[in-house]
Amino acid sequence: MATKIITISREFGSGGRTIGREVAQRLGIPFYDKELVDQIALKTGFAPTFVEENGEHSPSASRFAYAFAHQAVPGVMNGMSTADFLWSIQCSVIMQLAEEGPCVIVGRNADYILKDRSDVLDVFIHADLDFRADRIVRLYGESEKSPETRLQEKDKRRKVNYQHYTGRTWGNALNYHLCLNSAKLGLETCVDLIVAAATRPE
Amino acid sequence: MATKIITISREFGSGGRTIGREVAQRLGIPFYDKELVDQIALKTGFAPTFVEENGEHSPSASRFAYAFAHQAVPGVMNGMSTADFLWSIQCSVIMQLAEEGPCVIVGRNADYILKDRSDVLDVFIHADLDFRADRIVRLYGESEKSPETRLQEKDKRRKVNYQHYTGRTWGNALNYHLCLNSAKLGLETCVDLIVAAATRPE
Repeated sequence: MATKIITISREFGSGGRTIGREVAQRLGIPFYDKELVDQIALKTGFAPTFVEENGEHSPSASRFAYAFAHQAVPGVMNGMSTADFLWSIQCSVIMQLAEEGPCVIVGRNADYILKDRSDVLDVFIHADLDFRADRIVRLYGESEKSPETRLQEKDKRRKVNYQHYTGRTWGNALNYHLCLNSAKLGLETCVDLIVAAATRPE
Repeated sequence: MATKIITISREFGSGGRTIGREVAQRLGIPFYDKELVDQIALKTGFAPTFVEENGEHSPSASRFAYAFAHQAVPGVMNGMSTADFLWSIQCSVIMQLAEEGPCVIVGRNADYILKDRSDVLDVFIHADLDFRADRIVRLYGESEKSPETRLQEKDKRRKVNYQHYTGRTWGNALNYHLCLNSAKLGLETCVDLIVAAATRPE
């Protein structure tokens, strides 16, 4: 196929992860989401939950955790902030995975990290607020914050992180080859469209 | 089909018009581009070339033409600027066309004008600068300005017009259900994906 790597960026609660997993299954290629977190955790010495929480979030939020986290890898971070250190390891892990062969990578600014490769299809999944609010309550349960507040906080952190490390505007269609509204199209149609785009004739 | 109306917004030179025409042919539904301009011209009394030139461009540029154009419809414009008058007619023509049945509408902020309908699929077509530069030279020939300058000028005018009348940011993926990079995917695949999205199972 013309496309070897598919990166999926997504709004929280839009179903991007589920869509990515299904695309990988249909194409019979590896799916990196949690596995990516584990590999980064292994290389940095940070706990997977810490990587999960900070790998896509705003650097200021990550800096807050610096005092605790940098103990994990004494002498390795060379004066970098936790966020910058995490970013540099994330870049090298993602570039290495892309070298290993076809795969689907969800999140972690992989679209930007792999921007110099021509065999990548960059996808962005978004959805209306009420669709996402309903979905996160079903998937992750209620919390003391309203689903709308949880979405806004998570969106903001991803946005700031993306802008900080890529210099691009989050959600700008020009950064992606294919952007899909999963609330309008449905998750199954999103999978169909991504597979069709990835396996298009040369 | 779940979708009755397809609106196609596009960067100049991205092939959005060609894609829209092909989608309409495949689905066997009317295609409004030039026809839309003619209808607006008829209702306003402006020349089709004037409508074509100003219907998607920045209001400041349109105001420049006010002194000549408002002569066409004395007493009808009620003190509105040419641009605002054109916009109000454009809205009513587009809403009426959508009422008449399934169709494809290219440009003229139809995505925003029809935002309250649930049977609309909003598509945005964009492409890399070199792809578009090459395409406009092949389609429209050379001019004294470089293709890059022509693209930047046209992009800017559409962007300002869109922002002025819709309050939205041009090219923001969240405004559309489907955004496609025609340089990456190819025009034919864009047609396939739009048709698949428009005819998805309910």
